[in-house]
Amino acid sequence: MEFGNGNGTGTDNCNCNGNGIRNGNGIGNGNGNGNEKVKGANVIKMKPMDSELLREQGHIMVDFIADYYRDLQDSPQDFPVLSQVQPGYLRDMLPNSAPDQPESLNELLDDVTKKIMPGITHWQSPSYFAYYASSTSVAGFLGEMLNAGLSVVGFTWQTSPAATELEIIVLDWLAKLLQLPDHFLSTGHGGGVIQGTGCEAVLVVVLAARDRILKQVGKTVLPQLVVYASDQTHSSFRKACLIGGIHEDNIRLLRTDSSTNYGLLPESLEEAISHDLAKGFIPFFICATVGTTSSAAVDPLVPLGKIAKKYGIWMHVDAAYAGNACICPEYRKFIDGVENADSFNMNAHKWLFANQTCSPLWVKVSEKDAVVNYKDWQISLSRRFRSLKLWMVLRLYGSENLRNFIREHVNLAKQFEDYVTQDPHFEVVTTRYFSLVCFRLVPVDGDEDKCNQRNRELLAAINSTGKIFISHTALSGQFILRFAVGAPLTEEKHGRLYKNMPLNLPATAIVKNILKETVEN
Amino acid sequence: MEFGNGNGTGTDNCNCNGNGIRNGNGIGNGNGNGNEKVKGANVIKMKPMDSELLREQGHIMVDFIADYYRDLQDSPQDFPVLSQVQPGYLRDMLPNSAPDQPESLNELLDDVTKKIMPGITHWQSPSYFAYYASSTSVAGFLGEMLNAGLSVVGFTWQTSPAATELEIIVLDWLAKLLQLPDHFLSTGHGGGVIQGTGCEAVLVVVLAARDRILKQVGKTVLPQLVVYASDQTHSSFRKACLIGGIHEDNIRLLRTDSSTNYGLLPESLEEAISHDLAKGFIPFFICATVGTTSSAAVDPLVPLGKIAKKYGIWMHVDAAYAGNACICPEYRKFIDGVENADSFNMNAHKWLFANQTCSPLWVKVSEKDAVVNYKDWQISLSRRFRSLKLWMVLRLYGSENLRNFIREHVNLAKQFEDYVTQDPHFEVVTTRYFSLVCFRLVPVDGDEDKCNQRNRELLAAINSTGKIFISHTALSGQFILRFAVGAPLTEEKHGRLYKNMPLNLPATAIVKNILKETVEN
Repeated sequence: MEFGNGNGTGTDNCNCNGNGIRNGNGIGNGNGNGNEKVKGANVIKMKPMDSELLREQGHIMVDFIADYYRDLQDSPQDFPVLSQVQPGYLRDMLPNSAPDQPESLNELLDDVTKKIMPGITHWQSPSYFAYYASSTSVAGFLGEMLNAGLSVVGFTWQTSPAATELEIIVLDWLAKLLQLPDHFLSTGHGGGVIQGTGCEAVLVVVLAARDRILKQVGKTVLPQLVVYASDQTHSSFRKACLIGGIHEDNIRLLRTDSSTNYGLLPESLEEAISHDLAKGFIPFFICATVGTTSSAAVDPLVPLGKIAKKYGIWMHVDAAYAGNACICPEYRKFIDGVENADSFNMNAHKWLFANQTCSPLWVKVSEKDAVVNYKDWQISLSRRFRSLKLWMVLRLYGSENLRNFIREHVNLAKQFEDYVTQDPHFEVVTTRYFSLVCFRLVPVDGDEDKCNQRNRELLAAINSTGKIFISHTALSGQFILRFAVGAPLTEEKHGRLYKNMPLNLPATAIVKNILKETVEN
Repeated sequence: MEFGNGNGTGTDNCNCNGNGIRNGNGIGNGNGNGNEKVKGANVIKMKPMDSELLREQGHIMVDFIADYYRDLQDSPQDFPVLSQVQPGYLRDMLPNSAPDQPESLNELLDDVTKKIMPGITHWQSPSYFAYYASSTSVAGFLGEMLNAGLSVVGFTWQTSPAATELEIIVLDWLAKLLQLPDHFLSTGHGGGVIQGTGCEAVLVVVLAARDRILKQVGKTVLPQLVVYASDQTHSSFRKACLIGGIHEDNIRLLRTDSSTNYGLLPESLEEAISHDLAKGFIPFFICATVGTTSSAAVDPLVPLGKIAKKYGIWMHVDAAYAGNACICPEYRKFIDGVENADSFNMNAHKWLFANQTCSPLWVKVSEKDAVVNYKDWQISLSRRFRSLKLWMVLRLYGSENLRNFIREHVNLAKQFEDYVTQDPHFEVVTTRYFSLVCFRLVPVDGDEDKCNQRNRELLAAINSTGKIFISHTALSGQFILRFAVGAPLTEEKHGRLYKNMPLNLPATAIVKNILKETVEN
């Protein structure tokens, strides 16, 4: 089974260099107690919820997780950042069926250490520089705990009024930090909602825009609807359109190149719209991106918004990654023009330390009821109390600390960029705006094929060490390496692996030498 | 903004009788420490992740949550099950913007107690009998903690091999407990995937079936595609079809009534299909439900599956609630016929104590790659490590305990049913199969309108006490009360509120008398 599977950009995959299973040792359990009670359950009947068992075992789990973060920093050799296991490694390590009788937490945590950890790619490692980060934090983690503890389902206002009301308030807070226009605030004519992912966010707005235009023009025109975005747009946009029944041929992914640093050229958009209108198509949606997945490219919102307005097209802004940086005044300029957007999305779990599935989406709302029932703002009926963790992150750090976290990451990326720039064997291939550096080994004698191959080898060699994890993308046919800073434990020393990068050596030798430089330097 | 908002059945809403804000007192914080460090952050720069701060504050949060579960049982008067606040209650209690500087965990938890708790409808209260439960457990909670702690994003195999592989293995385990056919096992020709909700699950399979038929017949036939389900089917099915571009007029919600206990009559389905075929429509999907949202009605899978096979239609089985009971041999018969289904879904967060967003879906898979990349099995690219908590629930309780938890809930429902049956003022309106009792005050002098009104008043009166929370539905135009057992703290005493229900009194007086009967009786 597979549907709507789009690969617009090249960052879904990277090389895996399996060389057998390593046991991620060094994780202290600290779970010497709590077993008798569980073991006893073979005799004494268990209950699904027992506050004192939760207390006892919850403390054990807190220590297990705190030890994990401690050891990720102190014993990095025990945690290859990219997992080095082979496909199917786990099957033989676990039984074929669930146990009839309960096992102890001790046994389970022992299995996590010995069997699960080797198969973990450590997104929270300080040496994780791949894709964009999925950033957690102490506050985000506490928020997840509280969410799971209360375990309410706020699908309508009354199924937990606090869940709906806190979400409205906290998204107003965040909108103000981002200086979003009033029409995205609940006190204006809009409102925010926390989606699970940017993929859900773009799907929801594509559907809302689709239904708006079908209502205006008539439901039979679905095959004539066309959408626009740059060819750098995240694959989820194409997938959202296919889900919504937009014909694949009607998805215009407009070509970009290095002349605009892979941002969408407004002239390309207007030309495509004119062309489509002349042919009888109905343009209804443009997805602009601020900080693309591939290279953190920025589409120019001001001119794109003017075109969208001129033609009555819904403009969505996908700022999943870079939107977070816009809480800093110095980066706010990248979303100038958002005033003309119909919807705006960023992933607070990417770079605002809110832990996974926290993707705020703001929309203009035409009609308002007495209470918001969020089930009508999303795909699913059920929903978690996700605003809790965002509220906790904003309060327990304060906006000044959050800005500083982002600035430090950008600063680390800049340092890395400087190292790379200073080495004539490498080149930085796009202008760096945020915390992502796109670079590669330069071609020798203009041989691009060989150059791609050497960069591919370099990536594989780097990631197979387990000491650091970076990813790759494709830009204008070139194989490009991506170094993205954003993991919450990353400090200056973790980015410094590349200092004094040796010259004139083939890729694997380079890596060997690179890794002589340890994080202690 | 609103799209695809379907209200197929009547359980999305219930009455709210706000009578001001009550402070949910009685929650011990246990957070005497940890503040200096956070306060000090005004001076000392904070980090987003610090293992020792996580340890310190994690322990505080564990105690906060354990105290919550303890107090839900010991001090129920402090926790009205249905929140009694008025819309907008929270706005004035919180500032208008995020703080610049960090606040302490102590301040935050104090706000949770005083400001958030009054707006919580306590789904985990032992006296929660509304909708279906969203069941958590100690193991499910620990699983959420570990998931949030590792915080990996397993969208492809290699982004954390353990996340993909454990999901495959654990869903095989659960498939075996449910005695699902081999073609749903990874070792056969199928596989399982954990969706966030049943809504996502049905959307994914509607899209897969849609794309299969469009590939066979041609993409221009979208307006001719028709789908079938009973009129008792969850609203998410209609919403999924609308999202997928199926015309609203082509969604056949076939009428059911009390003669089949609101299960779909196979003859109705075959007649509708024949009728549609004669008119040139293309039937491609049937959603059968085992345990409807409204009344836990069961569609007969054996004859429906035969019809689906005969016409080459994708049959999906939505067993969101009742599927959980099918791990008990005595309930397995309700999914007999699943052998002919193309997909099967149940919500382990509903009644298998797995905490929210754990909705296993099994499908037949036509082609298999060397590794499973789950991003192609769902709406979003990103995904959490959800199998962890299901694995932990299955191991830390064992299947025998899980079966007993379900049997005890069914037993409590049966006891309640017996009380209601013994009182001539009440009637049980549908045959009870699982842990849901549908009942109402009987009409006096055959006046159905007045009867509906009295039941409405009874519901409002019951829920406004805050002592118990039940919900309602509509069946054949009648206003019906729903009493669903499934919260993890519920024991026999919590269901006994209705014992010795007094006779010959108007609704509010009945309730007054009912509530004289305390849980201590």
